[in-house]
Amino acid sequence: MDVMVLNGDGIGPEIMNAAIKIINKLHENFGLNINPVEYDIGAVTLDNGKWDLDHILDEARKYKAILKAPMGDPKLRNTGGTEKALDVILSLRFDLDLYANVRPVRLLPGVESPLKSYNNPDSINYTIIRENSEGLYSSHFGGLVLRDELAIDNQTITRKGTERISRFAFELAKKTKGSPKDGKKSVVCVDKSNVLRSFAFFRKIFSEVSSRYDEIVAKYMYADAMAQHMIIRPDELNVIVTENMFGDVLSDLGAATVGGLGFAYSGNISDNMGMFEPVHGSAPDIAGRNIANPTAMIMSTSMMLDWLGFGKFSKIIEDSLFNAIRSGVRTPDMGGNATTSYFTESILKNM
Amino acid sequence: MDVMVLNGDGIGPEIMNAAIKIINKLHENFGLNINPVEYDIGAVTLDNGKWDLDHILDEARKYKAILKAPMGDPKLRNTGGTEKALDVILSLRFDLDLYANVRPVRLLPGVESPLKSYNNPDSINYTIIRENSEGLYSSHFGGLVLRDELAIDNQTITRKGTERISRFAFELAKKTKGSPKDGKKSVVCVDKSNVLRSFAFFRKIFSEVSSRYDEIVAKYMYADAMAQHMIIRPDELNVIVTENMFGDVLSDLGAATVGGLGFAYSGNISDNMGMFEPVHGSAPDIAGRNIANPTAMIMSTSMMLDWLGFGKFSKIIEDSLFNAIRSGVRTPDMGGNATTSYFTESILKNM
Ligand SMILES: CC(C)[C@H](C(=O)O)[C@@H](O)C(=O)O
Ligand SMILES: CC(C)[C@H](C(=O)O)[C@@H](O)C(=O)O
Repeated sequence: MDVMVLNGDGIGPEIMNAAIKIINKLHENFGLNINPVEYDIGAVTLDNGKWDLDHILDEARKYKAILKAPMGDPKLRNTGGTEKALDVILSLRFDLDLYANVRPVRLLPGVESPLKSYNNPDSINYTIIRENSEGLYSSHFGGLVLRDELAIDNQTITRKGTERISRFAFELAKKTKGSPKDGKKSVVCVDKSNVLRSFAFFRKIFSEVSSRYDEIVAKYMYADAMAQHMIIRPDELNVIVTENMFGDVLSDLGAATVGGLGFAYSGNISDNMGMFEPVHGSAPDIAGRNIANPTAMIMSTSMMLDWLGFGKFSKIIEDSLFNAIRSGVRTPDMGGNATTSYFTESILKNM
Repeated sequence: MDVMVLNGDGIGPEIMNAAIKIINKLHENFGLNINPVEYDIGAVTLDNGKWDLDHILDEARKYKAILKAPMGDPKLRNTGGTEKALDVILSLRFDLDLYANVRPVRLLPGVESPLKSYNNPDSINYTIIRENSEGLYSSHFGGLVLRDELAIDNQTITRKGTERISRFAFELAKKTKGSPKDGKKSVVCVDKSNVLRSFAFFRKIFSEVSSRYDEIVAKYMYADAMAQHMIIRPDELNVIVTENMFGDVLSDLGAATVGGLGFAYSGNISDNMGMFEPVHGSAPDIAGRNIANPTAMIMSTSMMLDWLGFGKFSKIIEDSLFNAIRSGVRTPDMGGNATTSYFTESILKNM
């Protein structure tokens, strides 16, 4: 099966290289039937006109799964390359209707949390479902500035959008082991329904959907309270579902509690397509130096395989990655001095 | 000078009682000229019709300073008392044009941070300036739900609003000691200007204002990156300025890093009026049991006195509060067993 691979900018090609090596090894040794089709799409090739948005979307529609490296290059801010890359990222999510942005917050083996009470792998282990097709973000494609005096963006919440994202969250909760603390399966609806009607609407639809999932506890929390909760009692969390902008901020908060963006992986999922990507950026400052941490890219690959139905291969990736880290192999951001290639080789050796 | 005192709901009257005792002692012993005028305004008296919004706003306009306890009572959700209390809170901010919500994030002596690297008092010490008069919150007074299918709220950012809040942030930065790490004075503009035009407008106006403050470093960060930064390197922060909704979420995040809402105090400030309040809620579950932690209420009082020009008295409050805590006096939420009254008496004794 062909998978679209977007190499991106900065450290993108380097960490994607790690992911592809792993996919190829799974193919050679265990018969995984995945063929990565590489595209040099990123701020650079958008800037020099090699690619444009429509062309990219047309290509993307041919695939069931996309593996995406980070895009963007601050050097191209004035020429428009950075803005174009951002448009590509958001258009892939919106135009392909990849409505569920799945962001696991998981303390991996060998990684240190900045939180005092959380030291064991999986002592933090929950998933944020960020609504990815409407909310405040949809105003990226609208938005008004009037006479340099006033600017307005809209937060749009629909019944359809909220129903499907709520269902997605409950279906995911079913498949989890529940919260690390007591194994209770729950979905928390996160909003500011006390302040805004659109959030009250979100909460109401969520609540309607929840009645179809008796076996999962439906909970409700305001976004400010959730920001606290994720720091004070993350072990009580299982699945969180929230609006697009809140999901953006809370998922970065969650990433910080499990060691930073280097370990934050994600999937953007519709009913028939999925795009998988690290949450971190293209880190141009360390690009080309063979020191980038490919963990989030590799975990995104594992997530993709799992979503495609290749759970067995996903497990092989995670086991060998965790074993490599446990055996002390660490990139500079993790306090070690392994190169990206050495880190990758150690995983391959463990497979 | 008369100060309006809103007693609120739940633990409100108990913690306000602590604050008033302290004000009275400062009056008796040191000649502080403040006369607290108490109002039993809260969800309960809004619910039973003793007070209504217009009446409250009319009273409030007579004062230069307001000291406000938390309001709200979930028991009154169906009768509308809770919603009315929320309207009062937001109307006090919006109708009185208290545009700057000042929220210090400060690790107080004797209080433990959940973050591994931050153990000393003031090792976290920065201030979030939350824009309090527009942004997404202003849609509380608008907002649309259409045919149970769609809901829309607006995020409105104005030049006037952004100019004054930016100026406020830079003026505050001038008066601080800079960041705990290296004493550098800075203001970080927090937005998602990469995604939304209203945020790009916010950033642009902020940048214009920053050019008038050569002595302060102007910085820029996306809201998701700031959520990380507040967990990973809070000691680098000095002053943050951001939109209303982001300010709501980030200030709770900040509070969690310095021991929780029990220690989060705030001021809502216009060019000629100020309202001071704890960030926490009315905690009805522990109301009437004389176990509430009055720290945030007392620190709000101290902030009010400082703002009114009574810096000397503000200092007396903080010194005696910190001494009490340092000597081991702790309410149950702090892991001790002091009652609210005992805690307050210990502060009074230290004065
Ligand atoms: C790059 C940016 C547009 C993106 C977002 O804001 O969604 C990123 O922060 C993310 O979280 O995936
Ligand atoms: C009570 C509520 C309306 C309020 C807000 O959302 O602003 C509170 O959370 C706060 O932060 O002061």
